[in-house]
Amino acid sequence: MAQNKKMVEAITSRDEDFAKWYTDIVKKAELVDYSNVKGCMVIRPYGYAIWENIQADLDRRFKETGHENVYMPMFIPESLLQKEKDHVEGFAPECAWVTIGGSEKLTERLCVRPTSETLFCEHYAKIINTYRDLPKLYNQWCSVVRWEKTTRPFLRTSEFLWQEGHTMHETEEEAREETLRMLQVYADFYKETLAIPAVVGEKTEKERFAGAQATYTIEPMMHNGVALQGGTSHYFGDGFARAFDITYQGRDNQLHYPHQTSWGVSTRMIGALIMVHSDDDGLVLPPKIAPVQVAVIPIAMHKEGVLDKARELYNQLKQTFRTKLDDSDQSPGWKFAQYEMQGVPIRLELGPKDIEKNQCVLVRRDTREKLFVSLDGIEDAITDLLKKIHDDMYDRALENMHEKTHVATTYDEFIDLSKNNPGFIKAMWCGDSACEDKLKDATGGVKSRCIPFEEEHLADTCVCCGKPAKHMVYWGKQY
Amino acid sequence: MAQNKKMVEAITSRDEDFAKWYTDIVKKAELVDYSNVKGCMVIRPYGYAIWENIQADLDRRFKETGHENVYMPMFIPESLLQKEKDHVEGFAPECAWVTIGGSEKLTERLCVRPTSETLFCEHYAKIINTYRDLPKLYNQWCSVVRWEKTTRPFLRTSEFLWQEGHTMHETEEEAREETLRMLQVYADFYKETLAIPAVVGEKTEKERFAGAQATYTIEPMMHNGVALQGGTSHYFGDGFARAFDITYQGRDNQLHYPHQTSWGVSTRMIGALIMVHSDDDGLVLPPKIAPVQVAVIPIAMHKEGVLDKARELYNQLKQTFRTKLDDSDQSPGWKFAQYEMQGVPIRLELGPKDIEKNQCVLVRRDTREKLFVSLDGIEDAITDLLKKIHDDMYDRALENMHEKTHVATTYDEFIDLSKNNPGFIKAMWCGDSACEDKLKDATGGVKSRCIPFEEEHLADTCVCCGKPAKHMVYWGKQY
Repeated sequence: MAQNKKMVEAITSRDEDFAKWYTDIVKKAELVDYSNVKGCMVIRPYGYAIWENIQADLDRRFKETGHENVYMPMFIPESLLQKEKDHVEGFAPECAWVTIGGSEKLTERLCVRPTSETLFCEHYAKIINTYRDLPKLYNQWCSVVRWEKTTRPFLRTSEFLWQEGHTMHETEEEAREETLRMLQVYADFYKETLAIPAVVGEKTEKERFAGAQATYTIEPMMHNGVALQGGTSHYFGDGFARAFDITYQGRDNQLHYPHQTSWGVSTRMIGALIMVHSDDDGLVLPPKIAPVQVAVIPIAMHKEGVLDKARELYNQLKQTFRTKLDDSDQSPGWKFAQYEMQGVPIRLELGPKDIEKNQCVLVRRDTREKLFVSLDGIEDAITDLLKKIHDDMYDRALENMHEKTHVATTYDEFIDLSKNNPGFIKAMWCGDSACEDKLKDATGGVKSRCIPFEEEHLADTCVCCGKPAKHMVYWGKQY
Repeated sequence: MAQNKKMVEAITSRDEDFAKWYTDIVKKAELVDYSNVKGCMVIRPYGYAIWENIQADLDRRFKETGHENVYMPMFIPESLLQKEKDHVEGFAPECAWVTIGGSEKLTERLCVRPTSETLFCEHYAKIINTYRDLPKLYNQWCSVVRWEKTTRPFLRTSEFLWQEGHTMHETEEEAREETLRMLQVYADFYKETLAIPAVVGEKTEKERFAGAQATYTIEPMMHNGVALQGGTSHYFGDGFARAFDITYQGRDNQLHYPHQTSWGVSTRMIGALIMVHSDDDGLVLPPKIAPVQVAVIPIAMHKEGVLDKARELYNQLKQTFRTKLDDSDQSPGWKFAQYEMQGVPIRLELGPKDIEKNQCVLVRRDTREKLFVSLDGIEDAITDLLKKIHDDMYDRALENMHEKTHVATTYDEFIDLSKNNPGFIKAMWCGDSACEDKLKDATGGVKSRCIPFEEEHLADTCVCCGKPAKHMVYWGKQY
């Protein structure tokens, strides 16, 4: 128990120092290591296993909605990046540039992709000819680079892993449908797989992606009330198509520009997992993406029959669940702390007395509740418990989000809330970006998160300028 | 049929111009598109689907042998690359260098990884402390960059996708075992999944990987007799460990350097698939990695009941096989040519008469053999046929390799074979790299492929210098 306690004490308390608590977990759960390359991280086996589970789940959802994976070059020639004006303005300041290749100075420097709209467009220009070639529904899993001054593991790094979908459609209507379909795929994934609730809606013009006509977002709230942009889906109209001269012969035999979307989520989601669910003992992982779902820990291992029975149970359970048996010579207390730190949803304890009674002890990571369960039908009990853990994690996160969401109907209320109540502020807005700027400056960084799909009528006038309100907006600080 | 013929005629014949035949297939089967970035390729959906099947199969084999996936940064600071002398000499000439990040000139330029030994070593130095931390069995899936002057899709490109395993071990013996274990994993994969036979053995000192103490290789032969280095596995000794100051406290309480391996295969394997198996009608894919294993093609679609029955059959088969139903309004002839071009192992034709007889027609891509098969138990028939296709493809490739492998016991025989018989030459060698140089110069590029694990005693003396022979070597030109 001394050892156990020591490990637990080694983490900063979440309520004391959220930022330090976060980096403590990232390191102690062995998710990442810092590298000597500024702003880049090493994703360690346990962190990468979470990413693999995320990838597998999302990739299935993308394929079910008709998407195909491709791979584009990691370099973008400067002239290609410059083809779409808004786009290059948005990304040029954070590009990493290759200027030397194979000992020779390049005649044109190459940007390490910060995002791949331009590469997809160059390719689409070659392969799209008639309406029969549409839609094109492509996705890519890769790493991208955006040069950052200050970085934090998963949340903001100079290189990160992500997926980027890029699609082309015959009509605006179809492309807009796709934009919202993929946003919904993200929202479902957050809820069903990550157990994370979120506000979903449209970004204001000011917060749009460079070159987009509309940007939609999913905005989960972290435990401390700060927002994280969890995933975005963009409708581009035909702006890129015009810049890249992508045309197709329509059903009317005329040439038309296709309509485009893109959408992406990244390893940043692992940051969200930590900040939404975890606690002072370490990670708490939702069962669907936990690399280990059940950790089997034999108690009094030296007693006859314990280890045999534990191994038998492990071999049985691993057919159905991602199961780990820890028969190392560490103490049970050390093991308990270890799997708590790693966020394993269920710890299964099995000792001589349990074996006598044909039972085992299941301990939930999220609530620490202990359950004595018969070994007959143990798979069903674990299946049910994993589902319950998922649902309870979602409900607690939803409750936290509701608790930390407040309404402001006046400017003073807005300022007061931003100072004393971390979280989301719901308030009416006139549609003018000047008011967004003013509120951000007055509050030290509270920005519009999105105009939710389900708006409420909280007041008639803008919370900032008092002019007639056009929309209800969720506001908040962000990572 | 006219359309059918036209498509087929569009490919250059393999015997006429192997290089043009190769690029024709790569383009017509829609595996890749050329990009405007010199030496980089776009991997299109059909090509990427092959890569995904390759990845899934290999990844399973890696995990079954205890390996874990990680992700390292894509950039290597110049000082880090320089830590191991042989290594930097080998790779510096083909590096792409990032010199500007976020509008500012970097104080130290960054190499886009050509391989990641140095990054793994930097990380291992931090996380390896005692023998209890060993072995470390890490693998990474990523893209790497090696600046190439002349490039060909899949075979030699400035950027390519690969996996790189990097492991650390307590003893030399263990590390050497790992090196050979992973070579065997590759050999099994080539045989069991790609249906490709190969010569397996050790590279001569001259052909070793930069910094390695031993390099093992798998060398399949292409249909035209040219070799392709299909995958390599390296034993490094403790050279990198010393350079990076990686030490562990041993069972004897003393500090020791761990022993290291690395091993990798790349998208180049897709090039091997094409050049080993394919023919004048396009790709021929081994069933295990074919994105579509069975293409269902309804005949006389307009006749009552045909389309319904085809759909029913499709829905049934897709439970077990990667199946595609083509109910588009293209002619059957066009569809036949299309799926031949894409190398789909089995074409399933279903017309009104077949339905009457409760049968269908299965056509093998590899031999074009037609089989009339009852719809009862169709799954078993297809399973058996896919297995037979795989085995026959392997056997034909093996026969080709045997036919194009010759023995030379004298220098003149060697030169003569190299001119008139494309393929492998088996010949004895004294162990001196001067003889390798001489043979390469005299033959316009015939190099030692490897010293096979199973050597034969063909003569007492070196085929080049006449001094006593130390080894039998496989020689050949390579891609």
